[in-house]
Amino acid sequence: MKHPAAKPAALGEFGRIARYFAPLAAAAPGALGLTDDAALIDCSPGERLVVTVDAMVEGVHFLPDDPPDLVARKLVRVNLSDLAAMAARPVGYFLTTALPKSHGDDWLAGFAAGLAQDQAEFGITLLGGDSVSTPGPVTLTLTAFGRVPVGGEVRRAGARAGDLVFVSGTIGDGALGLDAAQGKLDGVLAPADIAFLADRYRLPRPRVGLGPRLSGLASAMMDISDGLAGDLGHICEVSGVSGVIEATRVPLSAAAAKLPDRLATVLTGGDDYELLFTAASDHQPAIQAAADTAGVPVAVIGRIEAGQGVCVRDAAGADIVLDGVGWRHF
Amino acid sequence: MKHPAAKPAALGEFGRIARYFAPLAAAAPGALGLTDDAALIDCSPGERLVVTVDAMVEGVHFLPDDPPDLVARKLVRVNLSDLAAMAARPVGYFLTTALPKSHGDDWLAGFAAGLAQDQAEFGITLLGGDSVSTPGPVTLTLTAFGRVPVGGEVRRAGARAGDLVFVSGTIGDGALGLDAAQGKLDGVLAPADIAFLADRYRLPRPRVGLGPRLSGLASAMMDISDGLAGDLGHICEVSGVSGVIEATRVPLSAAAAKLPDRLATVLTGGDDYELLFTAASDHQPAIQAAADTAGVPVAVIGRIEAGQGVCVRDAAGADIVLDGVGWRHF
Repeated sequence: MKHPAAKPAALGEFGRIARYFAPLAAAAPGALGLTDDAALIDCSPGERLVVTVDAMVEGVHFLPDDPPDLVARKLVRVNLSDLAAMAARPVGYFLTTALPKSHGDDWLAGFAAGLAQDQAEFGITLLGGDSVSTPGPVTLTLTAFGRVPVGGEVRRAGARAGDLVFVSGTIGDGALGLDAAQGKLDGVLAPADIAFLADRYRLPRPRVGLGPRLSGLASAMMDISDGLAGDLGHICEVSGVSGVIEATRVPLSAAAAKLPDRLATVLTGGDDYELLFTAASDHQPAIQAAADTAGVPVAVIGRIEAGQGVCVRDAAGADIVLDGVGWRHF
Repeated sequence: MKHPAAKPAALGEFGRIARYFAPLAAAAPGALGLTDDAALIDCSPGERLVVTVDAMVEGVHFLPDDPPDLVARKLVRVNLSDLAAMAARPVGYFLTTALPKSHGDDWLAGFAAGLAQDQAEFGITLLGGDSVSTPGPVTLTLTAFGRVPVGGEVRRAGARAGDLVFVSGTIGDGALGLDAAQGKLDGVLAPADIAFLADRYRLPRPRVGLGPRLSGLASAMMDISDGLAGDLGHICEVSGVSGVIEATRVPLSAAAAKLPDRLATVLTGGDDYELLFTAASDHQPAIQAAADTAGVPVAVIGRIEAGQGVCVRDAAGADIVLDGVGWRHF
């Protein structure tokens, strides 16, 4: 050794990468141990890669005092939800952290623990990324990779007049859960219901088991992030069709069903991360079988028609007018 | 049409994507017109994808009053430099913008114009991304994709005792260019030299033509971002070897050569985005031919030996001790 080793007193960028991130990439040969500036992804014949990016900013997408492990898991899950919505199976991800000096090794240790937990749950690995400092709020960007057989992807454009409209799980829990997390439902619901909804807001359940099974069945698909009505509007716009939602058929959790005056929030609130998809009615038995296999309930909530726009009908078949966040007429 | 269309008065997220970003993705079928949450990347048999991520934060990596087109081009280029350093050919990129409200359509128009300019120059397209708001500084994350034949990638680990150490272009202009851009060289150099160096700082020249031609020739490679001496240290550390730099052989631009007391900045300053690579001496003629074809000069600046660490020798063969930014003994 020609020179004495000079070890930094605190973990610098390289030390943080080695301690917190390299273990998360150990199972992926293409990550090269995070020693290089780039990573390698192998391609298989007959497959396509599906890539999605979602960013989260402290104070915009999460609260400054949210536990760092939950922040990490939400970041992972909103991206996996995008992959599932294209019927792709998740593979791995690149992560960029822009952290202020106030977020030291303790925060990063919790954040990395959350990543490790969800890597194990979803069978994915860290592949690479970048770590920078910022004078501003924590800003996190995750680029997620999945695989799909060529032609097996399900896009937003593809809904046809006559298709049924389906959703997975229950709708509205994400937005109602934000209210619950902020204490706005205290005294309105029982503590157990409040805890259920708040958890649904803090920790999305990406439908990674169901999404790929809808390949070849769903004609169009996306995940619900902007709100059910607005997101169906996105599908209708790019597909050149119109949509009808029957409000009474939208599935609710037991906690949500106890709330009065919930309809606008359920239909427009967003942050559900459930799958919204359309399919020909003759695929309904196969879709139900896929849902049973995945262990995720699905429900028919409406239909696709010719024309433009989305409308919501009540039990009597009358139009319901909505004017909330996430809702736009097209 | 069932409902009257409600158009937002100002461009919202969707309007901004449609106006500024969708045209940048028009040439890539897999980008799906940016209408979906994910994009598709086709894989070719015998190829691997090479993926890299670099983020830039206002006030850290660029100045608040830097022109937005130059910010965009620097962001693109630092990522392309990482691809070139692995001998990959660039394909496209995903972009995440976290913008404060102060950065309106004018800023975004300039930013998109810079992206368009470099897309044309480097033959790449936008593939997807995310747009979020932030209460903090502009934070930009770019994930770049390239392709490389299986086994043709060049990693950092691979330098062997006896290899020569090469660099492309001239070294030190990036760091000296920051001094120039900040007015620190006023009166020291002529205005033309100051302008040359400042431009080298503001607009890296990623060696995308040279990098892929070094596949099969270079034993290890990276781009110089942390500084020549420190970056050779990175190669040596992961390769398990030591490196010697002969200071007098480090190529300088005419402007840099005019500066006294420049050595520490040249060796440790960083932001060069030149290629630093090692190769067996019998590859030197082929490397020179590749450099001639690419139109990028290369120079031998030292050699790889057994052991650990990096040292810099002066013309008399004596060790030069450095203690600047980017410099660490290993």
